[in-house]
Amino acid sequence: MRLATVRYAQQPRLVLVDGNELWLPAPHSGWPESMLDLIAAGPERWRVLATELSKIKRDAVRLPRDGTEWLAPIPRPNKNVMCLGWNYAEHVAESASASGRKHEPPKDPIVFTKNVTSVSGPYADVPAQASVTQQLDWEVELGVVIGVGGRGIARERALEHVFGYTVINDVSARDLQFRHKQYFLGKSLDGSCPMGPVIVTREEVLDPQALDLKCWVNGELKQLSNTHHMIFDVATIIHVLSRGMALEPGDIIATGTPSGVGFARTPPEFLKAGDLVECEIQGIGRLRNRVV
Amino acid sequence: MRLATVRYAQQPRLVLVDGNELWLPAPHSGWPESMLDLIAAGPERWRVLATELSKIKRDAVRLPRDGTEWLAPIPRPNKNVMCLGWNYAEHVAESASASGRKHEPPKDPIVFTKNVTSVSGPYADVPAQASVTQQLDWEVELGVVIGVGGRGIARERALEHVFGYTVINDVSARDLQFRHKQYFLGKSLDGSCPMGPVIVTREEVLDPQALDLKCWVNGELKQLSNTHHMIFDVATIIHVLSRGMALEPGDIIATGTPSGVGFARTPPEFLKAGDLVECEIQGIGRLRNRVV
Repeated sequence: MRLATVRYAQQPRLVLVDGNELWLPAPHSGWPESMLDLIAAGPERWRVLATELSKIKRDAVRLPRDGTEWLAPIPRPNKNVMCLGWNYAEHVAESASASGRKHEPPKDPIVFTKNVTSVSGPYADVPAQASVTQQLDWEVELGVVIGVGGRGIARERALEHVFGYTVINDVSARDLQFRHKQYFLGKSLDGSCPMGPVIVTREEVLDPQALDLKCWVNGELKQLSNTHHMIFDVATIIHVLSRGMALEPGDIIATGTPSGVGFARTPPEFLKAGDLVECEIQGIGRLRNRVV
Repeated sequence: MRLATVRYAQQPRLVLVDGNELWLPAPHSGWPESMLDLIAAGPERWRVLATELSKIKRDAVRLPRDGTEWLAPIPRPNKNVMCLGWNYAEHVAESASASGRKHEPPKDPIVFTKNVTSVSGPYADVPAQASVTQQLDWEVELGVVIGVGGRGIARERALEHVFGYTVINDVSARDLQFRHKQYFLGKSLDGSCPMGPVIVTREEVLDPQALDLKCWVNGELKQLSNTHHMIFDVATIIHVLSRGMALEPGDIIATGTPSGVGFARTPPEFLKAGDLVECEIQGIGRLRNRVV
């Protein structure tokens, strides 16, 4: 399934995405009200819904792809988004080069969080917040949404805990990120976590480690890589996170960004009001966010 | 008001604490069901409730302080707990000494988060998780609960945004904390954020920067300081956090720990199964947690 959340009659509603069409199933069809409700319902319910899609569509309202307000697939997560730092070797190298220090690839995943309030829609404006930061930067990342919770999840079974995949732009205020040492504040400006446009459920993603990632700024390609290059793959991330901390349905993990970010360029480049950032992952979709 | 959350008839319920007595007001008294409901109701509602306490108590169920299961005042926060690192000069110095490096006190607050799932009750057991960490450590901290949200909050008005104060033990797995570079994972083991026993509302705390903090392990005093020694005081923390990120009612901030933690001792000391950790802040109360 390809799933999204849109605003309909003032409310966030879970819709099915089929090509250029959005389907909002009727309440009596058993379709959950929200993405988090659907995820909480569990694998058996997902399987049943997937087999009933043509029936569910019969009573659905069809919404135009373009005239509809898209929200983040999970507009208000139940906890902060968990994010990997330095999870692509070339990004480690460019960061090292930019800071003039020697950086080895991490032996253990580097994990920080983005605040719940940073989450925003796939086409939402990103506030420039020029009074707070002068160094707003882009980071295309594969987002993983947990479907089945657990603790001590074995690496070999980890992907069975995934509900689906999405695209995340881990917008980063580099001056805040480095000035405050720990990354949380620089990663948590309001509206700095565009997400979506859809969650593609797990069974439709043959291999999460074989997806092209791209990021453009004003139409110019800035990042181009493939999830194959992750240092810690999705299964390992889930395994390590869950060692002493329960993962829960609806948890969101941003799996790190490849090279090509702004602060590591010569000279460094940062986002300014008016810029258009686009982040795309193969088979999932493209975020399109204007800095304002 | 002194407020707590206890389990009553299987449900988490908001109670009023008066000396050794807990009062669970009747539903028809207009008493909110949960701490988050009360906080969301806003300052006008808090004022009215505070004037009606004797009336509210008339129809309340009285619960025994000792025979009742206490939960964290906010058992399930809406986002991660925001935490200050290195916010007491003597703790900066002991950390520097322990790591053999030179550390200056931070010029900007160092902020990381603890997962929502780490939050636990004031008398709850702390899982030793010996398969995951060998270096579990204690950190007594003043907790600040936001009552009135906002962005760009001026330092001078910042304390007006506080709902109340609590005690937090920011239990830390040092090996994970340092191995993973960013602190999130080492700070987020399940049950590693005991909190409570009460929230004391703002008007009852004359000066949040004049409170003694103490931590004992197995009855031996390990930490003894005063919130007067914070590098960034509560008002500054709220001001800085809210610069580009909206604070919301119910947000929880752990304001950093003074010196005396285990990893900085000679030789280093860590918690093991059977240990009893107690954290106390003057005028608020004492956490008492057994490592198991």
